[in-house]
Amino acid sequence: MAEYYPTALGASSREEITLLGADLAKDVMGHVGFGELAFWLATQRRPSKGETRVFEAVLAALADHGFTPTAIVTRLTYLSAPDSVQGALAAGLLGGGSRFLGVTEDCGRFLHEHLRQTQLPLDESGWDALALEVLEAAKGSRIPGLGHHVHKDGDPRTARLFEIAREEDLVGPHLSLFAAIGRVHPQVLGKTLPLNGAGVCGAALADLGLPLELLRGFALLARTAGLIGQLAEELRNPVANEIFLSVDLNNASVPPEPYGGPHG
Amino acid sequence: MAEYYPTALGASSREEITLLGADLAKDVMGHVGFGELAFWLATQRRPSKGETRVFEAVLAALADHGFTPTAIVTRLTYLSAPDSVQGALAAGLLGGGSRFLGVTEDCGRFLHEHLRQTQLPLDESGWDALALEVLEAAKGSRIPGLGHHVHKDGDPRTARLFEIAREEDLVGPHLSLFAAIGRVHPQVLGKTLPLNGAGVCGAALADLGLPLELLRGFALLARTAGLIGQLAEELRNPVANEIFLSVDLNNASVPPEPYGGPHG
Amino acid sequence: MAEYYPTALGASSREEITLLGADLAKDVMGHVGFGELAFWLATQRRPSKGETRVFEAVLAALADHGFTPTAIVTRLTYLSAPDSVQGALAAGLLGGGSRFLGVTEDCGRFLHEHLRQTQLPLDESGWDALALEVLEAAKGSRIPGLGHHVHKDGDPRTARLFEIAREEDLVGPHLSLFAAIGRVHPQVLGKTLPLNGAGVCGAALADLGLPLELLRGFALLARTAGLIGQLAEELRNPVANEIFLSVDLNNASVPPEPYGGPHG
Amino acid sequence: MAEYYPTALGASSREEITLLGADLAKDVMGHVGFGELAFWLATQRRPSKGETRVFEAVLAALADHGFTPTAIVTRLTYLSAPDSVQGALAAGLLGGGSRFLGVTEDCGRFLHEHLRQTQLPLDESGWDALALEVLEAAKGSRIPGLGHHVHKDGDPRTARLFEIAREEDLVGPHLSLFAAIGRVHPQVLGKTLPLNGAGVCGAALADLGLPLELLRGFALLARTAGLIGQLAEELRNPVANEIFLSVDLNNASVPPEPYGGPHG
Repeated sequence: MAEYYPTALGASSREEITLLGADLAKDVMGHVGFGELAFWLATQRRPSKGETRVFEAVLAALADHGFTPTAIVTRLTYLSAPDSVQGALAAGLLGGGSRFLGVTEDCGRFLHEHLRQTQLPLDESGWDALALEVLEAAKGSRIPGLGHHVHKDGDPRTARLFEIAREEDLVGPHLSLFAAIGRVHPQVLGKTLPLNGAGVCGAALADLGLPLELLRGFALLARTAGLIGQLAEELRNPVANEIFLSVDLNNASVPPEPYGGPHG
Repeated sequence: MAEYYPTALGASSREEITLLGADLAKDVMGHVGFGELAFWLATQRRPSKGETRVFEAVLAALADHGFTPTAIVTRLTYLSAPDSVQGALAAGLLGGGSRFLGVTEDCGRFLHEHLRQTQLPLDESGWDALALEVLEAAKGSRIPGLGHHVHKDGDPRTARLFEIAREEDLVGPHLSLFAAIGRVHPQVLGKTLPLNGAGVCGAALADLGLPLELLRGFALLARTAGLIGQLAEELRNPVANEIFLSVDLNNASVPPEPYGGPHG
Repeated sequence: MAEYYPTALGASSREEITLLGADLAKDVMGHVGFGELAFWLATQRRPSKGETRVFEAVLAALADHGFTPTAIVTRLTYLSAPDSVQGALAAGLLGGGSRFLGVTEDCGRFLHEHLRQTQLPLDESGWDALALEVLEAAKGSRIPGLGHHVHKDGDPRTARLFEIAREEDLVGPHLSLFAAIGRVHPQVLGKTLPLNGAGVCGAALADLGLPLELLRGFALLARTAGLIGQLAEELRNPVANEIFLSVDLNNASVPPEPYGGPHG
Repeated sequence: MAEYYPTALGASSREEITLLGADLAKDVMGHVGFGELAFWLATQRRPSKGETRVFEAVLAALADHGFTPTAIVTRLTYLSAPDSVQGALAAGLLGGGSRFLGVTEDCGRFLHEHLRQTQLPLDESGWDALALEVLEAAKGSRIPGLGHHVHKDGDPRTARLFEIAREEDLVGPHLSLFAAIGRVHPQVLGKTLPLNGAGVCGAALADLGLPLELLRGFALLARTAGLIGQLAEELRNPVANEIFLSVDLNNASVPPEPYGGPHG
């Protein structure tokens, strides 16, 4: 059995605290922004200014989308257990699964899977050819990052994130393939869909070299800030009790319906 | 019942997404850092550069403290349920309660409570007099933010955060009272204790005008970044299974001991 | 440091599994009901048949109350992250705090606090006198277990639980004091309020000698069964998406309102 | 949009509370055990005595396995946030994912998948033939419910649960196929492995007609009782701080190792 548990994260002695090998007080506090620090913690590599800017643009894109299930859950949990802010935030994050916050991770992984065998660099027609292959292979299944139920003519976050990545010279293979999917999918699907914001965020995070297994984690980090915003607003302008009552007072008691099981 | 649920946070139409009344793509992404955004979400007021710097220094101070219970919990939960990153992060945050992450909030609230009746401004001797009163009144109970089990000769984060706040001209009444407590407590307690980092963070957050009910929330936001770092390290250099086995293999089965209840 | 971690709960060797010192397969499975087992696990003492009956009546009383915040939260979390049943249940339980599920624990603790100094046994007039004292002492603050926003003329669970406890000869000091509060409070408060079901459950659990610090835990155990029922119904007859849309589609975007802080 | 949210679970009026269409006070409390109630809530069908006995035997088998990650997590979370029992329980349940508590659900689903096309009834040689087919088809992948790292010569829970199901005449197709896998797998795998307890529980729950999507939920319900037992023991005989220190004091600070990403 291990006698020691190695870590490169926080450590402290009587006089000193280090974080990632740096002196926390002298070299981190006052010098390192919070987005930069989150990137550094996740990769153990300090990002460049450009990487931080793209990363923080992704976090801004994912921080809050109004009355999502996660926001409603955090507000209702706080209503019910105001003694535990940590419980209200944790409950909200638990909705960050496959459906509402999962597209970012799914898209990053999907693109990565299809880049494994690719010889780089490619020019635009090379990317288009690869995108066509990818779309043909995936025919019949949903392409992560393609389509949006509200922004049917284009998700404003998508164009903006491409722009920022270009400005910082950080358009890598994931964003390139994602852009190509945006260009060529009408040929395969017979209709034009927008590249959505959650998807482009996944492509950008993958291009930044962040761990694919944790792409969902960055969406959750962004959302933690958003959920604190929801709680702050709930404290000043509460709606959770109204939401609860709107459900409870409109319930209709129906007779039990015995479950026959999946086998009929 | 309410027909509408008002919110100033995220909103979207077919063409546009706004956050806090600003155009998310155009005016937030690429312009607003993540710490700045978290502050803005929590207060609905965009912070100044100096406020952002103090706020991000606090987040850096609280992000990760090595193998804390929260870090161990996140790693063990991920070991047990690797299908759910959101569950591992939520489990870690649930340890952010009164004992390990609560000092920040307790200290901010404690200072605030004692500032309610105070006529400002005060000079240094005025702060010292107030601190003496506060310490006398609290005699016998623990003063939040005073004392540290490791950094017995001074917590390096404390001096540094005061320095940053001074540089940004953001030393308000909470930090002033906290500093005075640091100066005068030996007269009342008969021993010298350090002002700890969690406490000074609470004082600084309160001076920034952040909602006192959510001070713990900012510690949890910082910790979310830290826990992602813990998971990233666990993925590359796993220790959770060793930790689990070190407990499980050293268990000693003892006979049940019937509970007599609190009444004997 | 401890070399061994003692436990009287589950243990196993290559051939055998024990639980609470008993042979799990031979002496527990098939012989011990689930309520009985939960009681045994919490106290390390196997309950009598009567104790089990009272305990299970409490669990039945607390299992499900329809579209409570916890039920809504579990359904919304499952909608958002259907990959993680554990996340949906955990999120629902996180609402089991001071407001919605806390009365059971608060009431048990409140009664216990006022029984510390009491010389037993008491007759009915002795209980009434004690109850008057308790109510006078608590004047101005809320008495846990007194009042109900729906069952204004009496909570049907209360009379029933007293009846079951009497049948099993398990009316102890907590239930006795609670009953007396029910009899005498109009003299002190000037109005008649019902003893509510959550409160009587707390009194009964305390009389069973269960740990006061965990009374809320039994409410959560009961609720876990209820939340599984909510999920099972959601799977067959989904409403979570309708609930989400009823909030999201009725949101009204309002301008940000900068937070002035608690100090103005 | 729905004007009403239908539910057959808890409902109440000023005078009455119903649960699953029954009068909660009169017909449920004092008459229905907790295992029986949990089954009823999940299926909206009241189980027979025999079904309840098998179901409660499953819950007993899964309630507590000593110092598992979930138990350690609950104890550490309580250490860190003793103000929130709900948080400690929720954190423990979040470990109930694919690895440690998932076998029950995986096994039930796996057996069910292979029974879809089967013409029933089968005799023992018919089950053996089907089991051989199933094992051949699954060759190379792990068979859920087969093998145990401790009980290498047989898991005592397995034989016992088969016995109870036979006594209650509740051996259905899932248990039959699982038993046949136990008989014939050496022919295909070339070695003899035990049928484990988590697996047989999944087979039994599926034979009881419980929803396959929620089989993990029943493991979590059982574990909730176990985790309350862990907390109760922690309150009287604390070990969480020792566990925390055993990790924290044995940490070894190592230099950061920049993440190259999955692409190199």
